[in-house]
Amino acid sequence: MKALVTGGAGFIGSHLVDRLLQEGQSVITFDNFSTGQRQFLEKAQTNDRFELVEGDLIYEEQIEAAMFGVDFVWHLAANADVRFGTDRPRRDLEQNTIVTANVLEAMRKNKVRGIAFSSTGSVYGEASVIPTPEDCPMPVQTSLYGASKLACEGMISAYCEGFDMQAWIFRFVSILGERYTHGHIFDFYCRLLNDPDHLHILGNGKQRKSYLYIHDCLNAMFKAIEVAPDAVNVLNLGTDEYVEVNDSVDLITDHLELKPKRSYAGGERGWIGDNPFIFLKCDRMRSLGWLPEHSIHDGILKTLKWLEQNHWVLAARK
Amino acid sequence: MKALVTGGAGFIGSHLVDRLLQEGQSVITFDNFSTGQRQFLEKAQTNDRFELVEGDLIYEEQIEAAMFGVDFVWHLAANADVRFGTDRPRRDLEQNTIVTANVLEAMRKNKVRGIAFSSTGSVYGEASVIPTPEDCPMPVQTSLYGASKLACEGMISAYCEGFDMQAWIFRFVSILGERYTHGHIFDFYCRLLNDPDHLHILGNGKQRKSYLYIHDCLNAMFKAIEVAPDAVNVLNLGTDEYVEVNDSVDLITDHLELKPKRSYAGGERGWIGDNPFIFLKCDRMRSLGWLPEHSIHDGILKTLKWLEQNHWVLAARK
Repeated sequence: MKALVTGGAGFIGSHLVDRLLQEGQSVITFDNFSTGQRQFLEKAQTNDRFELVEGDLIYEEQIEAAMFGVDFVWHLAANADVRFGTDRPRRDLEQNTIVTANVLEAMRKNKVRGIAFSSTGSVYGEASVIPTPEDCPMPVQTSLYGASKLACEGMISAYCEGFDMQAWIFRFVSILGERYTHGHIFDFYCRLLNDPDHLHILGNGKQRKSYLYIHDCLNAMFKAIEVAPDAVNVLNLGTDEYVEVNDSVDLITDHLELKPKRSYAGGERGWIGDNPFIFLKCDRMRSLGWLPEHSIHDGILKTLKWLEQNHWVLAARK
Repeated sequence: MKALVTGGAGFIGSHLVDRLLQEGQSVITFDNFSTGQRQFLEKAQTNDRFELVEGDLIYEEQIEAAMFGVDFVWHLAANADVRFGTDRPRRDLEQNTIVTANVLEAMRKNKVRGIAFSSTGSVYGEASVIPTPEDCPMPVQTSLYGASKLACEGMISAYCEGFDMQAWIFRFVSILGERYTHGHIFDFYCRLLNDPDHLHILGNGKQRKSYLYIHDCLNAMFKAIEVAPDAVNVLNLGTDEYVEVNDSVDLITDHLELKPKRSYAGGERGWIGDNPFIFLKCDRMRSLGWLPEHSIHDGILKTLKWLEQNHWVLAARK
């Protein structure tokens, strides 16, 4: 079995590469190192079944060449920053939508039939049903990030129909754990390191967010691909919990033994397109025989411990 | 009021241009004439408030320049052929998704705040609820065409959230009437003209389809923009009817006084990604005070009569 992992040097991707190698598969890791880290592949690079292709998915010919002889694609590469950049509104179109079209074309040309895709709970916009199931009423998109991921889901599904492919589309909550390099917890940690006495919080701090620990996430993906049989399998991935941003901050400051003065930007949303309440119904994934082993609390603490031991990543991600 | 109509030389676009001029607006018609017809603009071109810009939306700078001073955008330009082209799987991405991103960027840069968009009932894939309401369960896409239109809807909605715009997104059934230049009725008419004794039908002929007459469609759009108040207004547009493909064929052959021998490609679907049953619930549009004035039967006959008097279009569309 030969797998190709796009974004294989990223947070989730590099863990996936390690896991695939551990399970005896050959792995082509495709990454442009725009946010991926070479250090995350240190262990993988000692394995004979590991191959690194440095390339950019925006160039279809690069991914088409890399996909020769591949059996299965894990498409994780993306702009993963949900925050709406009025300065760069085309970024999600280019790095998510167009890039995914390139991956699909490369698959078609190389006759690769299976794909796992990292989508997001952001496709639900501000969901009308919470906890939100996969078949909730068609939502209105509130972020270009969510819109681009939904565009990817649509293309993947249409390729499954048109070219006899099979897809597992995972709508993630935020993922936490070792090698975590962006998002709330990362930002708060960095800011507290800079200024232990003050912490500025976007929104009113009452936004409710969901998180999942990286190895629970990987367990779910492997389980789904093993047992979910449809041509297009859409699966929410999260825990049965959520936390307020203020509670996450409590956990972080308690762990760091800090008592910063908090200030708030105000408003229900942290930024334009932010969702004040993300909580996914994960019954479909549960019914396949998967259970998360770590609480959000566990995930945050594991993340903090890893960040404390890996300060190099703070500089690398600036 | 200065309107810009993309695809203004097309079937729906050119009727819209005529109507906008009739209502006293100034109209910039943007078209690349890939499928649009100069003859459709003959009447419009005699009006001082009409301006034609020949350009291609794939070049953002062209649409950005054309949008200077515009108050409202009607974005109708698209690849409108839902049939899945295994030979050209990127067409919908380019001509629908990327082009719409360009239109939105041009609007943002020119501070244009309002957009009407021609989406499609194809975004519902093979809907689990029929008649299908706008807030049906999130569907699985079955055509790249539907997927690309859903991608457009998502970007438009996210721009409304991010850049304080207002959008009216219309999910059309197939539109019929004068200047109709593609689709079932057009194809059947052309084939019967070529060979009055035989008619080959894709699928088993039992596919159930919905149609709406062009002027009912325009009335609905104008009504919605006048009274639907949300930042993002998503509206199905159709009649409360559907017809079997075989029934459409009966109507056509009766009108033409032909008795062709019918043959069938077979299968429930006319092509990969075809939807065997399209029937939209249009209560939302009805509740705004709109009613279609023409039945599907009327629409088909008006279309046939126009085609009979305009054989030039058969050659032009080949």
